[in-house]
Amino acid sequence: MTEQMNTIARTENFDVIIIGAGPGGEDSAAQLLAAGLSVALVETELVGGECFNWACVPSKAMLRPGHALRAARRLPGAAEAITGRLGATTALDHRDEIVRHRDDTSEIERFESLGATFFRGRGRLDGMRQVTVAMRNGEHKLTATHAVIVSTGSTAVIPQIPGLADANPWTNRQATSVSRAPRSLAVLGSGAVALEMAQAWMSLGSERVTVLSRRSSLLPEHEPFVGELVLKGLDNMGITVRFDTRVAEAAREPDGSLRLRFADGADFRADELLVATGKKAASTDIGLDIVGVPSGNFVAVNDDMTVGDQDWLYAIGDVNGRALLTHQASYHARIAASAIICRAQGRENDFYDEANIVAVPQVIFTDPEVATVGLTLKQAEGLGVRARRIEADMGSVLGARLHAHGYEGRASITVDDSNGTILGATFVGQDVADMVHAATIAVVGKVPVKRLRHAVPSFPTMSEIWLDLLADI
Amino acid sequence: MTEQMNTIARTENFDVIIIGAGPGGEDSAAQLLAAGLSVALVETELVGGECFNWACVPSKAMLRPGHALRAARRLPGAAEAITGRLGATTALDHRDEIVRHRDDTSEIERFESLGATFFRGRGRLDGMRQVTVAMRNGEHKLTATHAVIVSTGSTAVIPQIPGLADANPWTNRQATSVSRAPRSLAVLGSGAVALEMAQAWMSLGSERVTVLSRRSSLLPEHEPFVGELVLKGLDNMGITVRFDTRVAEAAREPDGSLRLRFADGADFRADELLVATGKKAASTDIGLDIVGVPSGNFVAVNDDMTVGDQDWLYAIGDVNGRALLTHQASYHARIAASAIICRAQGRENDFYDEANIVAVPQVIFTDPEVATVGLTLKQAEGLGVRARRIEADMGSVLGARLHAHGYEGRASITVDDSNGTILGATFVGQDVADMVHAATIAVVGKVPVKRLRHAVPSFPTMSEIWLDLLADI
Repeated sequence: MTEQMNTIARTENFDVIIIGAGPGGEDSAAQLLAAGLSVALVETELVGGECFNWACVPSKAMLRPGHALRAARRLPGAAEAITGRLGATTALDHRDEIVRHRDDTSEIERFESLGATFFRGRGRLDGMRQVTVAMRNGEHKLTATHAVIVSTGSTAVIPQIPGLADANPWTNRQATSVSRAPRSLAVLGSGAVALEMAQAWMSLGSERVTVLSRRSSLLPEHEPFVGELVLKGLDNMGITVRFDTRVAEAAREPDGSLRLRFADGADFRADELLVATGKKAASTDIGLDIVGVPSGNFVAVNDDMTVGDQDWLYAIGDVNGRALLTHQASYHARIAASAIICRAQGRENDFYDEANIVAVPQVIFTDPEVATVGLTLKQAEGLGVRARRIEADMGSVLGARLHAHGYEGRASITVDDSNGTILGATFVGQDVADMVHAATIAVVGKVPVKRLRHAVPSFPTMSEIWLDLLADI
Repeated sequence: MTEQMNTIARTENFDVIIIGAGPGGEDSAAQLLAAGLSVALVETELVGGECFNWACVPSKAMLRPGHALRAARRLPGAAEAITGRLGATTALDHRDEIVRHRDDTSEIERFESLGATFFRGRGRLDGMRQVTVAMRNGEHKLTATHAVIVSTGSTAVIPQIPGLADANPWTNRQATSVSRAPRSLAVLGSGAVALEMAQAWMSLGSERVTVLSRRSSLLPEHEPFVGELVLKGLDNMGITVRFDTRVAEAAREPDGSLRLRFADGADFRADELLVATGKKAASTDIGLDIVGVPSGNFVAVNDDMTVGDQDWLYAIGDVNGRALLTHQASYHARIAASAIICRAQGRENDFYDEANIVAVPQVIFTDPEVATVGLTLKQAEGLGVRARRIEADMGSVLGARLHAHGYEGRASITVDDSNGTILGATFVGQDVADMVHAATIAVVGKVPVKRLRHAVPSFPTMSEIWLDLLADI
């Protein structure tokens, strides 16, 4: 009898239930709460999710000190003031402060103060608009009046290499949370996470960092100059990249180091190995099958982030596989929250009609930075667009040369020749991260090149690269 | 007879004659040459003009080392590596290299290789389409088939204060070219040049820098938070600002120092005094009166940069008084060159119709930087627009906090409520110089706020301030 009463007491109704309190979950919760809806926020691990706790945020905190020192070293006069070494311990302590020592109490309190109900536990769908949360103190049954949002994110993939999983390598989690640099670090993979962490740990004290790439060039999904310039940046820091590398076997040695055997038979050792070869959707064990949605894979969504024909079920952020980027998760959150709020209020949704899901920006915080948005020339051509790539040398822009002596960088735009607009842009160089938003606005705003010529960049800023990019169109 | 032959030999005809080879003159020359027109480029002093030789370029070169070191000091871990002092001599040598030791030989050669004819001397209009150049080897008489462009720039004003001119104070010229910091520096004026030079010399070794402002707040033509944040930045560096200061008298003392007497009777001494109180048009002594244009003042121009009803006479850059900014001079150059080329080729000019002269950007390279474009709220209201200012705190953007510990900054946009577009924007903070171009594109492109919401800024960049700026519109 008591047990039954407990069970009844634990059934709670909310307007919206959000499974996963990463950036997508947090941002949708905030918007829904602001609109007066009641929200249950369910999180197994930490509020902030992978990005805040074990990815973009700590990694950028680890990268910035090295970047800033190198930036100062590139300026005659400033260079002379840098006579000491980067304080790795201080930098890593600061990183831990930034991520609140992975204690999400204050964030939970913030959401509770906004009116949310927080559940720490695994949330599983167990029917339409129904979620069960397995908590320490038992199961909680939740029902949603309007919607359930799945924002469970993604997790690192460990490739099927004999011995690798047993060797207990680093994923992004250890790479962004340990407090001491391994003397030597091998990085399996050559995407954004791999390259950022290679540079971070090289800056923070590793003596030898080796990137093991399966591919024959870096970042081949980007414009061709991107990989070349980043490779040069890695080389400048003393980081080795081995291309076309196949790891056949891995093992943790008794001394704690990692031994790899390559397909060509060669042996390779490093004190630590970071596996950064990709991510998979965190879509298992959350009850998707129960509501007829295949689990384990990325969850396909419609443009308003609903899943299939279920207008109460939304999937946002990494788990929907559209773009595994924090800002896109937050954007999905805005789209989903807007759709839910409008449906709840019986209003027409005027938000996602405007959505431009082609203009996805991305920044890789390596040195040089890579900042891109929209389509490369190859992608545009793949879509059958009559397009051109216009390239320009950042190093010839006076603003860049004043920003850093011997500035090296390059930029390009993808121009749609059928209508004279920009479909994408790429910037590579020191401190270009905030330059891409201008291109994003041009792409999303469909501002014709003819009009862009009247958007005058200020002298002497690096943005004057736009003058070169637009000169010959 | 010989003399007469010489005179005849010296009369040369060009498609276009350009008087003044600063950024406006250089950029129009390059475009006209590229279009196949013949060009005479006339310059009394140095190619590159005030900006390249004695203003924006050397000043930024002087500011960057200090800015970069302070940026690194704001990052735990990086700060520890900075144990030495800024190398002022190296920084100033580098500045001199950047400005090519004020030797314009290579620039002249570059223009000659493009087909221009260069004349070093004072160019004066002496009739319609006629210019006389006073050179060392005599007078050269030039005639223009299509146009004469006046791009003579501006010069520093020395206010009418008893003793001041005789005291031989610094203008921007000395402030950007001397090789040793004065122990103490007083700066008369509190605009961009004054504040940049105050910070530059404080970084480069001056022990005491005092800004003497006639006004009661800094940069009052900008949004209110601009002056407050810049004042804090000056204060952080130990620079004193004296507001509401009236200098009644100035004198150079026998020991070489400057003595000022304020209107309240107080005395003030400094080893050097920089006068940065404004600029006047360099429009005297270039023959404007001969063609019926008043000289001495800024030369009023039409939107295609022609002067009055004279379709052969153009005035671009500082001298026309529209906006005393290098990039605007270059923009004027594009407008004028386009108009001249189209007229010469009998084509319709499709460039200046699109011109948006309201969206003028400006960057003040102080620490914090100030980057603005378009209208402040006050300016918009002054034009009778129903507008709002939306402000947001840069320091609450995670990308900014990762960029610098304790980041301080602020941003705003001016929204036109009648049509939901942005009329202007302001950014203040470390490294915001390249953030304003996004706003410039939004303003010039007239991208509605509703659509701007779909221009997603990348996480974690500082551009995420746009999310806050657009949240509540």
